[in-house]
Amino acid sequence: MKKYVAELFGTFWLVFGGCGSAIFAAGFPDLGIGFLGVALAFGLTVLTMAYAVGHISGGHFNPAVTIGLWVGGNHTAKEVAPYIISQLIGAILGAVCLFLIVTNNEGFESLGGFAANGYGELSPDGYNMTAAFVAEFLLTMFFLLIILGSTNERAPKGFAPIAIGLGLTLIHLISIPITNTSVNPARSMSQALFAGGEYLTQVWLFWVAPIAGAIVAGFLHKTLFDKE
Amino acid sequence: MKKYVAELFGTFWLVFGGCGSAIFAAGFPDLGIGFLGVALAFGLTVLTMAYAVGHISGGHFNPAVTIGLWVGGNHTAKEVAPYIISQLIGAILGAVCLFLIVTNNEGFESLGGFAANGYGELSPDGYNMTAAFVAEFLLTMFFLLIILGSTNERAPKGFAPIAIGLGLTLIHLISIPITNTSVNPARSMSQALFAGGEYLTQVWLFWVAPIAGAIVAGFLHKTLFDKE
Amino acid sequence: MKKYVAELFGTFWLVFGGCGSAIFAAGFPDLGIGFLGVALAFGLTVLTMAYAVGHISGGHFNPAVTIGLWVGGNHTAKEVAPYIISQLIGAILGAVCLFLIVTNNEGFESLGGFAANGYGELSPDGYNMTAAFVAEFLLTMFFLLIILGSTNERAPKGFAPIAIGLGLTLIHLISIPITNTSVNPARSMSQALFAGGEYLTQVWLFWVAPIAGAIVAGFLHKTLFDKE
Amino acid sequence: MKKYVAELFGTFWLVFGGCGSAIFAAGFPDLGIGFLGVALAFGLTVLTMAYAVGHISGGHFNPAVTIGLWVGGNHTAKEVAPYIISQLIGAILGAVCLFLIVTNNEGFESLGGFAANGYGELSPDGYNMTAAFVAEFLLTMFFLLIILGSTNERAPKGFAPIAIGLGLTLIHLISIPITNTSVNPARSMSQALFAGGEYLTQVWLFWVAPIAGAIVAGFLHKTLFDKE
Repeated sequence: MKKYVAELFGTFWLVFGGCGSAIFAAGFPDLGIGFLGVALAFGLTVLTMAYAVGHISGGHFNPAVTIGLWVGGNHTAKEVAPYIISQLIGAILGAVCLFLIVTNNEGFESLGGFAANGYGELSPDGYNMTAAFVAEFLLTMFFLLIILGSTNERAPKGFAPIAIGLGLTLIHLISIPITNTSVNPARSMSQALFAGGEYLTQVWLFWVAPIAGAIVAGFLHKTLFDKE
Repeated sequence: MKKYVAELFGTFWLVFGGCGSAIFAAGFPDLGIGFLGVALAFGLTVLTMAYAVGHISGGHFNPAVTIGLWVGGNHTAKEVAPYIISQLIGAILGAVCLFLIVTNNEGFESLGGFAANGYGELSPDGYNMTAAFVAEFLLTMFFLLIILGSTNERAPKGFAPIAIGLGLTLIHLISIPITNTSVNPARSMSQALFAGGEYLTQVWLFWVAPIAGAIVAGFLHKTLFDKE
Repeated sequence: MKKYVAELFGTFWLVFGGCGSAIFAAGFPDLGIGFLGVALAFGLTVLTMAYAVGHISGGHFNPAVTIGLWVGGNHTAKEVAPYIISQLIGAILGAVCLFLIVTNNEGFESLGGFAANGYGELSPDGYNMTAAFVAEFLLTMFFLLIILGSTNERAPKGFAPIAIGLGLTLIHLISIPITNTSVNPARSMSQALFAGGEYLTQVWLFWVAPIAGAIVAGFLHKTLFDKE
Repeated sequence: MKKYVAELFGTFWLVFGGCGSAIFAAGFPDLGIGFLGVALAFGLTVLTMAYAVGHISGGHFNPAVTIGLWVGGNHTAKEVAPYIISQLIGAILGAVCLFLIVTNNEGFESLGGFAANGYGELSPDGYNMTAAFVAEFLLTMFFLLIILGSTNERAPKGFAPIAIGLGLTLIHLISIPITNTSVNPARSMSQALFAGGEYLTQVWLFWVAPIAGAIVAGFLHKTLFDKE
């Protein structure tokens, strides 16, 4: 049970902190944190909670990670579904709290796209569905290779949250202009539910591409790197 | 005694470095560090002094942290008051040194809001009291969950100052536009004393919300995560 | 065999992540990550994959590093060529994937210089061949001194990927305006092949200067620092 | 002998990397790294070389650090002078290499202030001598407290270069607008020699204030924190 609460809290924090930094602070005139600050924020949500509760739940905070670890042989099949449900609940609660803060601003008019992911017309910089799929697939694949490799018993002990958290920062540095960066279906779902409309229609890609990338990484790691 | 001096020095550094970076460097034309640089500075004050004196005092530098650790069972009741007094003295001395530098600038006219925290009309981006309370409550709650989790005996040894310091950076990346970010009553008090006026009237929120968040985190950690 | 795959993946990630952040995100209006974000991205590609596959291949991802480690006595002669070939294949595949994404943008017209390196008219800020050679030579020399020193048995265990990755970030912070920063012939080659023209004519310097710097560092380390 | 070469290389890197990032990359139009990037660069020069050669020389790269460690009881008296001489040679060689690159730019006209430190009219933001002295004194004092504390035997092993390097980053985030940040007489000397004129007249402050701060920190640490 403790594990599921840990995943819920961690995914709450990922959405509240990562998407929150984008919504509140990225575009502040002159002093805003920009994509660089948002990239750092997403990474630090994972780095911090992985150190805080990683010893309880493993610190996935992401359905694609849970599935990739299962394929890679580092997570039991029966715990895949409850992990993902916990992550979705946490992510949506995070979005609810963001909504509560955003609407308590004197200048509030509409949510706009919240921090939702998108392609084509909803891509921050006009990348089409193919570009979005390739980017989300490859970035999640490498995210899982980093997770599986850095938590391997032959890797230095204790450093994995740094590699994984800053890996998520790196992924955002590359791809915010492409899709607003998902690599995490729970994060995407939580924002699409509030952004609605076309964002909700496109959310399938941010389930399929990350999970496909994670599955491939699980196989690659097991086949290529994990055996003696 | 050594502990109290360590807390005094650490909180001095938090205020001098974090608020100082905001006052001196955030808005420098073209080259300024912006909210991202201020967020990094606040986090690094804690990271650096936690490595320097964490083995002496635990490295709280924050009344809400001291109270949260006490509720979470990691700090004795009788040391709560002297810790908080030491932190307040350090924070105010830090503000005095900032004042000394600020007023020795050829262009000095007035302190303005110093680096004080506020809501409503004093919020950097127009967030009201509800938004400010929710943000400060949640962010301090997670700050304490990170502290209690990363210093837990099952967490990797030696990494807690990284998780905690960069956690404070993350908190600033999210919330400088909302309240100028407190999560630390000593930091808020030290600035409100110099900024005066309405800032001083609002300082209660930056005592109540962070401490409430810290107490909830202490209970949550003890109840959910700390037992076998 | 596992080693060569690891080097291929790592160098793919270096090019895809480092050059990708430059191509997609550096110049985004108002919110772009700038040279600072690109510098961080390059460093994090190495930090993350060094933790992920460093225990398999050593985590070079760079022909100059492989040669410098060989001269410094940390890599066998017979594995120099296959490492470099794996790195080149990975780098070029990374560039192919970048090409695939870039060309799937609604506004795509031409690749321009991709993220290629150059001097003289192709230097981002007008530095001539001498400046480019001195910079690439010195920066690669120090990069190897950092690698050889931080992986030395007397250095703290497990921290080398942090020192090396952030060392590459530092190198980019200094020299993007000079040459767009190479210190890595595989990275340079992969971009020059797509940028073509004058970029391809100049690519020799980004083989010669980094490798020369790496060889000197290998000798210096072996002579000055490595013996008892 | 090995130690002196290590100090020479490390201080070369601090000047070449830290001052170089300021000279080449800080003010690049739109994409420049600004004070934040320069702050990161200075910190990373120390982080990287402390991991690379810290086990050889202790990794001071700064006369004020050497003196502070001597006062704090962590460095022998007879090695103070040769360390400082090595640091000065390294710093000046770093400045020579910067000069070589800067003058090989098509647009080169004059060095201007190079990356020299100054107060009053030479302060980046108009801070007078008092402000400069207070800032340099306090920042170097805390720099030494961080160094002495994080390398203490009760502090976590191996993390000191992170705390110290990022401590130098923090110091720059606070004080570049005040003095262009010294806390290091060798760094200041190397730039003043090239900038000349008034910069050279003011360089005394960047010897006196940092060394005074370092001496006070050495005493404070020995008296307050180091004994059982």
